[in-house]
Amino acid sequence: MRTFIVVGHRARTDGNFSLDDLPGSAGRMDILCRCIQASLFLSHTLRRDVDCLLILQGEPEPPKTILFKGSEVQYLNPDERSAGSLIKKALAMKVGTVFRHSTPGVYIRATGLETLLLDHHPAVADEDGTDIRHVPNFGTSFLLSDHLNFTSEELRLLQSQPRFTVGPRSLHADHVITVINNEMDRREAGWK
Amino acid sequence: MRTFIVVGHRARTDGNFSLDDLPGSAGRMDILCRCIQASLFLSHTLRRDVDCLLILQGEPEPPKTILFKGSEVQYLNPDERSAGSLIKKALAMKVGTVFRHSTPGVYIRATGLETLLLDHHPAVADEDGTDIRHVPNFGTSFLLSDHLNFTSEELRLLQSQPRFTVGPRSLHADHVITVINNEMDRREAGWK
Repeated sequence: MRTFIVVGHRARTDGNFSLDDLPGSAGRMDILCRCIQASLFLSHTLRRDVDCLLILQGEPEPPKTILFKGSEVQYLNPDERSAGSLIKKALAMKVGTVFRHSTPGVYIRATGLETLLLDHHPAVADEDGTDIRHVPNFGTSFLLSDHLNFTSEELRLLQSQPRFTVGPRSLHADHVITVINNEMDRREAGWK
Repeated sequence: MRTFIVVGHRARTDGNFSLDDLPGSAGRMDILCRCIQASLFLSHTLRRDVDCLLILQGEPEPPKTILFKGSEVQYLNPDERSAGSLIKKALAMKVGTVFRHSTPGVYIRATGLETLLLDHHPAVADEDGTDIRHVPNFGTSFLLSDHLNFTSEELRLLQSQPRFTVGPRSLHADHVITVINNEMDRREAGWK
């Protein structure tokens, strides 16, 4: 079981955006769509042992958390519009603080990072963290930020979490997820 | 310098497709768009030392080769529609066997894999290949297929090229590119 958690600092929190403009009016929702794709897709199949949680913090009703459960998800294709369409549907629902079912394998609630940290103790992707290849056991839960840095309030919440980095260059969040999945795949298969 | 080459077996070879339907009417052009993104993007900047070549083999005028030159490319954003739009513009041009300039950093010609192999000697992504981490020097040019396997004719052209794999699971082509970029970044920076 692996869990990827991505904070979308400006990602819109209602369904009032166009699938033709995921980067603009939807608040860089394109990044979150690619993070779902990087988390859940293998060639010709899905990673049924992976969950992806998106924490949306943009206008007009932040925060909201959307869960894509790899074990249940349906109607998801690898292209950005496909994930964007499922996010848009989830955001059109009225929600409270408990996860509500949207489409198969997709759930939404109106809470943010602080609530999520009650259940998850993720390792945090951080360019100053320990090289992932040198961390013997960093758990199965990973937290990433979108194109913006974590805020000071988020950093305060995360101060006791371990930090790791995947390499010497600063990468897009979806690329970091791909490298983590690869590292975990290799370890699980005993590749050295 | 790195070069990624991706064969799109059904990718449409004229500009007559909708950016709203890159997976369908455009012949899984979404995969090629993500391969451009994985090849060329770092966080908040582009990899100016990377080229990405797409070999399009779908209807109606196969083959065509589109070159995205990292050192020159402009007007490219990380979302699929952005790359798709530049591909569509390139495909709208009349072309012969010599690269013709389309938009800044994007070139197109009406040739395929055989011509490309005159100038490039790529290592081929192959699940039965050598583990990338155990290949001391595999050059700087990498060939991948889209969601379909290489054809027998392509395999004949590629029979003398080295084979490598990035891990134990079968990945999307863009994820393979991301892992290769990460491995090369680490080697160039002296990360062990």
